[in-house]
Amino acid sequence: MEVKPVKGTHDILGADIILYQRIEDALAKTAHTYGYLEFRTPIIEHTELFSRSVGDSSDIVRKEMYTFLDKGNRSLTLRPELTAGIIRTIVNNKLYASQDFPIKASYIGPAFRYERPQAGRFRQFSQFGVEAVGLDSHLIDVEVISLGYNALKSLNFIDITLKINTLGDDESRNNYREALRAYFSEHIKDMCSDCKERLKINPLRILDCKVEEDQKIIKQAPRIQDYLTSDSKERFSKTVNLLDSLKIKFDLDENLVRGLDYYSEVVFEYHYISRDGKSFGALGAGGHYSHLVEELGGPNLAGVGLSFGIERLAQVVENEKLLFDAFPFLAFYIMPIGDVNIEKVYELNEKIHRLGYPSEMAYESKSLKALFKKAEKRSALFAILIGDEELEKEVLTIKNLRTKEQTSVALADFDNVANNIVEEELVELNEER
Amino acid sequence: MEVKPVKGTHDILGADIILYQRIEDALAKTAHTYGYLEFRTPIIEHTELFSRSVGDSSDIVRKEMYTFLDKGNRSLTLRPELTAGIIRTIVNNKLYASQDFPIKASYIGPAFRYERPQAGRFRQFSQFGVEAVGLDSHLIDVEVISLGYNALKSLNFIDITLKINTLGDDESRNNYREALRAYFSEHIKDMCSDCKERLKINPLRILDCKVEEDQKIIKQAPRIQDYLTSDSKERFSKTVNLLDSLKIKFDLDENLVRGLDYYSEVVFEYHYISRDGKSFGALGAGGHYSHLVEELGGPNLAGVGLSFGIERLAQVVENEKLLFDAFPFLAFYIMPIGDVNIEKVYELNEKIHRLGYPSEMAYESKSLKALFKKAEKRSALFAILIGDEELEKEVLTIKNLRTKEQTSVALADFDNVANNIVEEELVELNEER
Repeated sequence: MEVKPVKGTHDILGADIILYQRIEDALAKTAHTYGYLEFRTPIIEHTELFSRSVGDSSDIVRKEMYTFLDKGNRSLTLRPELTAGIIRTIVNNKLYASQDFPIKASYIGPAFRYERPQAGRFRQFSQFGVEAVGLDSHLIDVEVISLGYNALKSLNFIDITLKINTLGDDESRNNYREALRAYFSEHIKDMCSDCKERLKINPLRILDCKVEEDQKIIKQAPRIQDYLTSDSKERFSKTVNLLDSLKIKFDLDENLVRGLDYYSEVVFEYHYISRDGKSFGALGAGGHYSHLVEELGGPNLAGVGLSFGIERLAQVVENEKLLFDAFPFLAFYIMPIGDVNIEKVYELNEKIHRLGYPSEMAYESKSLKALFKKAEKRSALFAILIGDEELEKEVLTIKNLRTKEQTSVALADFDNVANNIVEEELVELNEER
Repeated sequence: MEVKPVKGTHDILGADIILYQRIEDALAKTAHTYGYLEFRTPIIEHTELFSRSVGDSSDIVRKEMYTFLDKGNRSLTLRPELTAGIIRTIVNNKLYASQDFPIKASYIGPAFRYERPQAGRFRQFSQFGVEAVGLDSHLIDVEVISLGYNALKSLNFIDITLKINTLGDDESRNNYREALRAYFSEHIKDMCSDCKERLKINPLRILDCKVEEDQKIIKQAPRIQDYLTSDSKERFSKTVNLLDSLKIKFDLDENLVRGLDYYSEVVFEYHYISRDGKSFGALGAGGHYSHLVEELGGPNLAGVGLSFGIERLAQVVENEKLLFDAFPFLAFYIMPIGDVNIEKVYELNEKIHRLGYPSEMAYESKSLKALFKKAEKRSALFAILIGDEELEKEVLTIKNLRTKEQTSVALADFDNVANNIVEEELVELNEER
């Protein structure tokens, strides 16, 4: 009997892993370009971390967390997102003590949410993101927005739609929350049971509701724009002006609120519609936060962050063929011919490994036809054929698998020759594309 | 109130993350050199996967797993090792169907064991490893041993001690198990309670016991070497002969049994003793297995694998200073001077990001002294100074932070100049080392 993978999880193999690796490398490179260094925090955290940061009123904490007691009776949770862990470690390690702001962190790794699995949605999924903590300015907000925008460009996305909105500062949000409470109290009897609960905990959360009948009521609700303080208005106008001067296009979207409790001021999402008009929804999102560091026991510092779902990106990149095929996996595939001494061939393969070239050899005797098929399947650049004659004369027969050209190379010269032919072939392949 | 990290977990930041990244890159490169492609499997698996593979009699399954019920009442476990998931996905996806062996997988990622935390031992830790499945030959066994050996070489380890042993085939092990059962039955009354249980489940496990008083009894126990079949003897002698011809040094160690139930035939560990004589124990280990694929619902295929603990490697690499310092983190640190228009400077920084150079700018006005201190702290190659005069004349003042040389560059020329000076400086730095 097989053991199946856990519902909502997925294995990443073959062509998929090469795609994932290339996406992750491109994202990490963009983060580095902006001066963000990886912070790697654990997958298991005290449950309290998320109830205090993501917020008890969020759907994530209320319904979606993998929470359990460990053998020491601690309530642990598999992280549902990575921001909370980053802020925790900033606080634990007092990284703010030097007053050297912003503290810049990037992250990449798995997160867990017990949601209904759907196409492209998983219970274990991966997130990439950044956090910039300690500088409360539209300059750093725009830096993070721009980083995300250029990360998508590095994956060859064109026509990304950046949606942005402001949730205002504390005063704006308090006024707005009261206005929403007054409005929804009049309509709550006609709304879903989730919304009835949200009204008690945090009426802002009602704006996230996806129930169709509730949408009509939500559309008539008060709007944040009418409750912004002049400070928040000014900050937001500086933000959009700076985006303009960087030539980053955006759409203002007043309905954008984000499903986490901690955001304030600017929030944003990156949307993508394919060339043939298919909407892929939000590829990534982020926003500014004012109280998260304090909430987790640190000083009163603002921050701004964004995150991308790697699975979603991989799905779109593959669907839209945004990345070229990967380069060949092997430099050399080694073919022992006839009843040649296999251990002598083995020693050559080991030598090639130590020179740093990806290579494999056939361990079982097969027909030449089968060997060439295997070399192609492993996408090698060259075949090396070795029979008794080659071993005796100490020469190698090397065949270019693309051009079918064949040359003889003295074993003693292999080090020098290998470097040249591999490099030349990679240049050729690059030009062909 | 701060939220602390969970006991036995650790955050990886700053210089540490650069070290980890470099170690992981080197390991992944070596795996690729041998033709192994990453298989990425989930962190959560059905508990049954590990009770069937790692084995009910192992300490891991008996005492150390993070096991819990999810919201759908499934018994899930945070993987305590990564081999089981790899084999599961080979079986689920019928990767054996093409009869194209060996199937080669590498892996890297977190694993979880509820052990007593000690120096360098964590409850969440990371493993790197490879599995080669479907070819039952000393050739592939030695390939995996050699891969691990060269992975350590790529981290600049010298004087690695490879310990190897054979556990023999099924017949050898059955005979040996009976001999152990007979022997320990006579002495079990004087042994620890764990050993009493092990005798019932699997007497081989008694050899793992670390209780000092039990050691005397264990030392007198029958030895596997006296129970090997002639097939197993011959296979082992081919293995050590091939290692000899590859000039990989090894020590035979009859006490090496490995703490997992699934091994048979060759098992091995890589040990390291520092130049000043400090023993770091096993850095990594592996072995051949005969029944794991079948146990997990696949056909009767053998395999061989190895794994390294990343935390342990990082500890030793750091302690022994095996890797040079990392290269500078930033190419450019941009310094706005006086009351220059900060948004104009911001646009330049964005331009540098889009060219792909890691760069940062100061967002707050500071003294030049403070700015240079910051540039050094972020280990930048060059400072770019921009004041009103520079903006007006459209020139940049670029200062090499190592040589202190200063040059003026027209803004329009920056693209060309940047590429040259960054490359030249990296060459210089490389030569200095």
